[in-house]
Amino acid sequence: MLADVPDAVPGEGQVVAKTLACGICGSDLHAVHHLEHGVEMSLRSGAADTIDPSMDLVLGHEFCAEILDHGPGTDRRLRAGTRVVSTPFNFGPIGPELIGFSTRYRGAFAERLVLTEALLLPVPNGLKAEAAALTEPLSVGTHAVAVANPDRNSVALVVGCGPIGLAVIVALRRRGVGPIIAADFSPARRARAEKLGADIVVDPAVSSPHANWSSLDVPATLAEFSLAQLSGRSLRDALIFECVGVPGMLQNLIENAPPTAHVVVVGACQEDDRILPVIAINKQLRFTFVFAYTPDEFAETLQALGEGVIDPDIFLTGEVGLAETAAAFARLESPGNDVKIMVQPWR
Amino acid sequence: MLADVPDAVPGEGQVVAKTLACGICGSDLHAVHHLEHGVEMSLRSGAADTIDPSMDLVLGHEFCAEILDHGPGTDRRLRAGTRVVSTPFNFGPIGPELIGFSTRYRGAFAERLVLTEALLLPVPNGLKAEAAALTEPLSVGTHAVAVANPDRNSVALVVGCGPIGLAVIVALRRRGVGPIIAADFSPARRARAEKLGADIVVDPAVSSPHANWSSLDVPATLAEFSLAQLSGRSLRDALIFECVGVPGMLQNLIENAPPTAHVVVVGACQEDDRILPVIAINKQLRFTFVFAYTPDEFAETLQALGEGVIDPDIFLTGEVGLAETAAAFARLESPGNDVKIMVQPWR
Repeated sequence: MLADVPDAVPGEGQVVAKTLACGICGSDLHAVHHLEHGVEMSLRSGAADTIDPSMDLVLGHEFCAEILDHGPGTDRRLRAGTRVVSTPFNFGPIGPELIGFSTRYRGAFAERLVLTEALLLPVPNGLKAEAAALTEPLSVGTHAVAVANPDRNSVALVVGCGPIGLAVIVALRRRGVGPIIAADFSPARRARAEKLGADIVVDPAVSSPHANWSSLDVPATLAEFSLAQLSGRSLRDALIFECVGVPGMLQNLIENAPPTAHVVVVGACQEDDRILPVIAINKQLRFTFVFAYTPDEFAETLQALGEGVIDPDIFLTGEVGLAETAAAFARLESPGNDVKIMVQPWR
Repeated sequence: MLADVPDAVPGEGQVVAKTLACGICGSDLHAVHHLEHGVEMSLRSGAADTIDPSMDLVLGHEFCAEILDHGPGTDRRLRAGTRVVSTPFNFGPIGPELIGFSTRYRGAFAERLVLTEALLLPVPNGLKAEAAALTEPLSVGTHAVAVANPDRNSVALVVGCGPIGLAVIVALRRRGVGPIIAADFSPARRARAEKLGADIVVDPAVSSPHANWSSLDVPATLAEFSLAQLSGRSLRDALIFECVGVPGMLQNLIENAPPTAHVVVVGACQEDDRILPVIAINKQLRFTFVFAYTPDEFAETLQALGEGVIDPDIFLTGEVGLAETAAAFARLESPGNDVKIMVQPWR
């Protein structure tokens, strides 16, 4: 898994940067075990072909780095030595490529990497590198909640409290949404969900995450919904974030979500899944599949971290050097108490 | 299939009415062959248990009727002899029940039926009964488009041009959405789609309904979408109405729809279906499952029919008496040139 790779050489409009910290993401774990499948899914999604299987692939897209040097055609508005984060894109001959999922543009589980100057954001307020590297995964939550567009009438349920579920809870709390119900089998994850602002935490082994709807003024059955609609009574809306991403979760929500619920699918189920569309029709459910974030959401999340609005230490559960990265990947296969392990290549 | 049923007796707040015309719906065809499955899906959706399998079930929910007599506790604002339509609900001891899918409240494939006075809408402007009976299926299109909430930026694709697909085209045209692409294997259905205002009709056996996106300024691939997003370029949005409702349609759209497309699922797939969620995630697709309509949408659709905004004759392809209803059901199993066959029990 450890390999020597060629020097990082910045092209037109690019800088070379030193990785300070880079978080390990679920998609990195998937890539290690199922790279071919991931590539096939990506190509079937219409993405550009950015992974040459004959070459080394360096993962890592949740990074904070320090500018070392500027390539040609840069305006050097940020000087060497500046600590930066960036949406993980570079622009090459075939268009935008995802840093860390491209053999042309190595990811940040390396000592140095090439970044696009125009996308760099300076780390504000002396925020530590490990916290700044959380910008990427936290932006996924910012985006999921922005797409959901909750209002005062929304009641939120977050299913699964891994890094992404917790990022969604952070974003919901920042938007003032409440109550927030959070469900996870792990006591450690439920405890973190509570610290981040979940109002009700549920262990699905003990009770259904859907047991609370009626008491929160959300119509729990079709009969309740029809009666409310025909009588013009207004009720609250269920907003459900699916942050688990394994087969069966969508059908579980189709069967158990209240009528007209909006399900935002953040967990990426990589396998074939079975659903019964007619039940989703009868209940008028909505499913919004989300991915990543916009540049504005990324910048706004970094700013919130810089202003201390988000406590990074609830997410940061480990730091390793490159030599220990393989062991950290193994540790995250059954995460236990871990949320986010940061790789520090210079450690 | 033909049976004598007890007299229709109006209860509190109800009227007894004479059926003038009632359209045959795809859900009626499904009920004839798969009633047990439909009941199971309905109960798993959280609907009230309204069908007693030991009793005769009279189908028919797309009706126009004439008031014969008023029950107790009615205000008689509409006199006997008034021709009316109504959302197909009655309110009984267990709450609202769907007329035509309830053994307590027979449907309109009968000479007389009981309706709820408070829901009755008088047929305006001397509209013929068969046209007024189209209010129900056309309202499904009104609702699907209202939920989709298109704007000037939307490009619409209607997949399947049966009665529901055509109702969606009517509603899109009324909202001023364009262009509208319509896809169906049947030349007769494609011709009707064009008459109702589809701008581009596609035979999926000849070319893909998704071949036109790029030329209509909708980003067709993830690479095109990423580039547009990163460069801040605004493009048009794909709005896709799934009006077929058989297994495989959703995955077909997941694979072929352009990134960020909003898929409104109007066709009710009654069977297990397989999807690959990760592709929907990568492409950030949205799926909104819709059912029926609101009372306001129903009333507004009737008004549009009354004002001559919608040409009912494109939909009306047959009229039968009760004795020929079974044959009409059989005819609709392979619809050919048919769209909507009206049952006229007094014919």
